[in-house]
Amino acid sequence: MENTLTPLTETIKVLLEEKKYSTLRDILETMNPVDIAELFEELQDEKEPILFRLLPKELAADTFVEMDDETQEFLIHGFSDSELKEVVDELFVDDAVDIIEEMPANVVKRILRQADPVTRKAINELLKYPDDSAGSIMTTEFISLRPSMSVEEAIKRIRRTGVDKETIYTCYVTDNLNRLIGIMTVKTLLLSDESEKVADLMEENVISVNTLDDQEEVAQLLSKYNFLALPVVDTENRLVGIVTIDDAMDVLEEEVTEDIEKMAAVMPSDKPYMKTSVLGLCRKRIPWLLILMVSATFTGAIITGFESALAANMALSAFIPMLMSTGGNAGSQSSVSVIRAISLGEVTFKDLFKVMWKEIRVAVICGVVLAAANFVKIMIWDFRGMVFAEAFPVALVVCLTLVVAVTLAKMIGCFLPLLMDKIGFDPAVMASPFISTVLDALSLLVYFTFATIILH
Amino acid sequence: MENTLTPLTETIKVLLEEKKYSTLRDILETMNPVDIAELFEELQDEKEPILFRLLPKELAADTFVEMDDETQEFLIHGFSDSELKEVVDELFVDDAVDIIEEMPANVVKRILRQADPVTRKAINELLKYPDDSAGSIMTTEFISLRPSMSVEEAIKRIRRTGVDKETIYTCYVTDNLNRLIGIMTVKTLLLSDESEKVADLMEENVISVNTLDDQEEVAQLLSKYNFLALPVVDTENRLVGIVTIDDAMDVLEEEVTEDIEKMAAVMPSDKPYMKTSVLGLCRKRIPWLLILMVSATFTGAIITGFESALAANMALSAFIPMLMSTGGNAGSQSSVSVIRAISLGEVTFKDLFKVMWKEIRVAVICGVVLAAANFVKIMIWDFRGMVFAEAFPVALVVCLTLVVAVTLAKMIGCFLPLLMDKIGFDPAVMASPFISTVLDALSLLVYFTFATIILH
Repeated sequence: MENTLTPLTETIKVLLEEKKYSTLRDILETMNPVDIAELFEELQDEKEPILFRLLPKELAADTFVEMDDETQEFLIHGFSDSELKEVVDELFVDDAVDIIEEMPANVVKRILRQADPVTRKAINELLKYPDDSAGSIMTTEFISLRPSMSVEEAIKRIRRTGVDKETIYTCYVTDNLNRLIGIMTVKTLLLSDESEKVADLMEENVISVNTLDDQEEVAQLLSKYNFLALPVVDTENRLVGIVTIDDAMDVLEEEVTEDIEKMAAVMPSDKPYMKTSVLGLCRKRIPWLLILMVSATFTGAIITGFESALAANMALSAFIPMLMSTGGNAGSQSSVSVIRAISLGEVTFKDLFKVMWKEIRVAVICGVVLAAANFVKIMIWDFRGMVFAEAFPVALVVCLTLVVAVTLAKMIGCFLPLLMDKIGFDPAVMASPFISTVLDALSLLVYFTFATIILH
Repeated sequence: MENTLTPLTETIKVLLEEKKYSTLRDILETMNPVDIAELFEELQDEKEPILFRLLPKELAADTFVEMDDETQEFLIHGFSDSELKEVVDELFVDDAVDIIEEMPANVVKRILRQADPVTRKAINELLKYPDDSAGSIMTTEFISLRPSMSVEEAIKRIRRTGVDKETIYTCYVTDNLNRLIGIMTVKTLLLSDESEKVADLMEENVISVNTLDDQEEVAQLLSKYNFLALPVVDTENRLVGIVTIDDAMDVLEEEVTEDIEKMAAVMPSDKPYMKTSVLGLCRKRIPWLLILMVSATFTGAIITGFESALAANMALSAFIPMLMSTGGNAGSQSSVSVIRAISLGEVTFKDLFKVMWKEIRVAVICGVVLAAANFVKIMIWDFRGMVFAEAFPVALVVCLTLVVAVTLAKMIGCFLPLLMDKIGFDPAVMASPFISTVLDALSLLVYFTFATIILH
């Protein structure tokens, strides 16, 4: 496929071929690391290591963090040991861990060999935390203060140790056993008198998370309380790290993508769409298609089971798709609304009755409106020219089915996600396609039951 | 419905009835504003204004901002003018605007009357920006520095003016015409020598947005570049405000909810699920159900059109639900993946051919795998005991339909969202339910075409 480059990338490519290195450096230095990383990903040129060497040390590290893993791996292969060491030294520990997790074993070994002993130890500590835990996304580089310090001493400490810290704006006050006892923002420090004591100024009602807490919960907490960082403690309340807002935003974005994929019957992955291979996409999609196909077969079996009823009144079969899809759509409206409310923390299992009661009322209103619209349409359009005594019973069956099917669909649609959440599964798998197939079958059963009762 | 209160809310309720005000104050002072706001929403007690008066001034304002609009309105009605003034004085301008936008006209008038003239002017300015624009979510309370200042002077200025600012961590350097020329973080200020000049330290490559830019784009930028705040300028590059990360996160959350709702055929609203009335939910859901019902009718018409073919070979009808739902599911997998990639900025219309080519390959593989699985299932299970010459043609029709329908579904599923985005519509409406109904009908047409060709 053709690969159109942006004008900037074009320019860089030409300058690189012409070896205009000082011009290149001037351009790169005006750019944001995120944009430079995008440039490298687009460039896909074997001269990339040369270009990377033009970056000043700190910018190089910031850029490296933002690249995708293929570009990172390619660059690492081109690095000398001392170049690799320079980059690794500049990385924040949590970023180093993120990179290492995506690299093959031999590259990991090379990276760890270049890291200084303290960093290596910190990286190894972080690598031990389970995937998706607070520990796995936290950084160990934060500023800790002591309660006995004065504001002046605290600011001095920040000045001395702040360079390597991921954030300096929220500092953590710990006792001599390293237990977290308070939080101190730079804002408070700057706006207070230099002689005041940290102990008197710090916020003592600290909201913290445990190393093993789920990363999504951690990110939701940061978002809920509008924090810039959240402290992570171990089981003895000792401060071991912090999660910063930028990492929390990445987690939220990932989790939303995962939820949306589950709702569309795609198995979640952590790779962006354009970076996923064709086979990768197939692997994510085929399992669900197969499962849904099998469950749709039951719907087929229901139709076959009522073959004689259908043969006796062919008019009935024309309404099958409409009833099936309305049931499915009504149910997935409810399930998706409830799933989103669950993931925003608005609703939990204890709200089951409130939610059910709400959905039942909504369902009855929706069902009656749809039934009324259908009744008019059937009598005026579908069955025009038919005698009333023949048309009415069929219309009645269709409309009754609509009311009952929509009500059942919405009840099941709100119940299943809450139940899943309660028993510890992800409610998102209870969304659209899966619930639709179940509700398709259910709607048909309701339809044929009414048909049998009313028309025979 | 029963309304179960959390133990804390229970306690507060009892203490409030017993008029234990100093105990209440002690409890409230240990709490985070977000949690106090939740408490008020849960309490729903006519004594709420009394409880609110117990809060220290600043905590009161922080709490007020976090409440839902009903609770805010209820409290305002209970406030005296001077109490209202106290709260309004403590609010950030952008928060005041958010509150005002949700209030009825008479309450808005009261609020504006209590605001001091400067604040009132700022509020009125912000109210003029269109909904969903950068201007509507920005705050005008930021710290601006001059390039000629020394680090020491800059820090002094922050100390003097920082109290009322929403963030002090990113400061903006402007020239004497108020044009934005640089960015200065408190981190840089604290880590630099006191005598250095702002002009030499500031970041000159500023990424800014325009007042009329879409709020979602602004939020995506903040997230992409990991900024804590983003400057907003007018058409002459004059700095008029900043958007902070907490507001950006709220925007992203809102937009994701909106996308998810659209994907589930629910018209988006900005109210949380539990706060939306039954009629409100019906209004959001019925229009789509009606539209989808009408389009499903076409599918019904297709079935009716092939009635004679179906009557001739009843075995065909059992596969209708499976083929319909597989087509729909395959298409919505593609559309949802592409929609998410569009909203994350990974894919645009210029990638159309790359995306299509990818989806076609995925579709053929998915189609062939599903067809093979079905062929085995049909021959071994569905048509067990049937003679081969009779079973094979039907199985062939079903399997060919699967391959063609899945391919068409995935092509349409990725094309429509990209097209919608290109012509300026929201791609999310092209997701699941709408695309499903179209693809249901298409799958049936393919099915009956193959049936007519092969079986007759």
